[in-house]
Amino acid sequence: MEDLFIIKIGGNLIDDETSLADFLRDFAALSGKKILIHGGGKLATDLAQTLGIETQMVNGRRITDEAMLKVVTMVYGGFINKKMVSGLQAHGCNALGLTGADANIILAHKRRNAEIDYGFVGDIDQVNAEALAQMLEAGFTPVVAPLTHDGAGNMLNTNADTIAATLAQAMHARYRTRLLFCFDKKGVLASNNENDVIPQLTEAEYHRLRATGVISKGMLPKLDNAFAALRSGVERVLLCHASQLTSALHEEASGTELKR
Amino acid sequence: MEDLFIIKIGGNLIDDETSLADFLRDFAALSGKKILIHGGGKLATDLAQTLGIETQMVNGRRITDEAMLKVVTMVYGGFINKKMVSGLQAHGCNALGLTGADANIILAHKRRNAEIDYGFVGDIDQVNAEALAQMLEAGFTPVVAPLTHDGAGNMLNTNADTIAATLAQAMHARYRTRLLFCFDKKGVLASNNENDVIPQLTEAEYHRLRATGVISKGMLPKLDNAFAALRSGVERVLLCHASQLTSALHEEASGTELKR
Repeated sequence: MEDLFIIKIGGNLIDDETSLADFLRDFAALSGKKILIHGGGKLATDLAQTLGIETQMVNGRRITDEAMLKVVTMVYGGFINKKMVSGLQAHGCNALGLTGADANIILAHKRRNAEIDYGFVGDIDQVNAEALAQMLEAGFTPVVAPLTHDGAGNMLNTNADTIAATLAQAMHARYRTRLLFCFDKKGVLASNNENDVIPQLTEAEYHRLRATGVISKGMLPKLDNAFAALRSGVERVLLCHASQLTSALHEEASGTELKR
Repeated sequence: MEDLFIIKIGGNLIDDETSLADFLRDFAALSGKKILIHGGGKLATDLAQTLGIETQMVNGRRITDEAMLKVVTMVYGGFINKKMVSGLQAHGCNALGLTGADANIILAHKRRNAEIDYGFVGDIDQVNAEALAQMLEAGFTPVVAPLTHDGAGNMLNTNADTIAATLAQAMHARYRTRLLFCFDKKGVLASNNENDVIPQLTEAEYHRLRATGVISKGMLPKLDNAFAALRSGVERVLLCHASQLTSALHEEASGTELKR
């Protein structure tokens, strides 16, 4: 079975030209098949603010009304996606930007919730692994924005961590899949000390650290997604700093590796 | 040789939900291989205005500074492209949205002009016909936004008519290519009467009507592009109203057909 890297990078990286350039160079240098999923970051919030559109967040999720859907489609699917794609092309990586609507790669439905109307937020129903495999076999590197569609003409806003984990689950039957979450910390931390990285983490240990409050907030949905991928058969799941991409993959002591 | 339709549609269509829905339905219903190129329309100008960015036009071409490049990348590559793609997916057409940067399909350079600095406007150097053919053979329908890239990490703003004609020229060695320009008129007009459509037009006749001022303004670059494609060996070139797509293709008396 051939190797496949599925790498998720936060959208905030795009704010820092140097960090972005370094990451794109490192990603482009990875040999073999790979898929990049990028987040949204605060650029959408900034644009919405400039346009006088109010950003409403509930439990860390953006409430996406029609005006905000237009903003995130422009920022995630247009600006950030093309910044990544053109940057990778400059490094010789044959990037192909996608949302879930493109080639129907991620079909979702509008979130159903009795208490909160999240608006145009999509929960994933189906990944078109065949279409992604066709692109990979053609030599393209998919670069996926955190947007899906409902098959009825509507784009939907979908969490990038969830997309990365779901793609990994969909692809691991065809490829020996490794999933990496690259972000602005060196891994899952055992304390407030930025260097206090947990090198290996089992799901039992995760639940223990979660119960005691050591792991909290934004790490929770990320780790829930990551462990779901590991459980489903994804070969390796790693969390590391964006600047550690290369060393984390070469089995050196970087980041946090999830263990079965 | 297999048939290929290359169809250009103006970006203004997106302002009218009914016209857009009708066009996407008709386009989706075309059997066989096809590529859609969409224009930008005035949505980018509107957004730029809201953001306080001044739109400067010289000879019908937008001067694209860095702020405007960001706006057109968001509007053309994000909002309009995904509106078209998700709309086509809803009609069962497996659309795949692209800019020139994606899969490196259109490489361009920043326009060199001694008198006017057009900014981030791209003149096309090379079309990656192989990548487009791979997508077509995989069953995808490319939907191309009027954006190219320079291979050095910069997106560039490029006229959609030019992209359509250049793609047709690049693809006709592999496919029996028909190029259609769909817009808001019934064809090339011989007078101010909207129904006074010239059914067939040779290049010699075009130059005569251009000299006498019958054909002018926005039609000139469109026809220059269209005749260049015809000269290069593209099978058929048609100009028609967006609502006439189906009838124009069925050889009925709709639109203007360019003749060698």
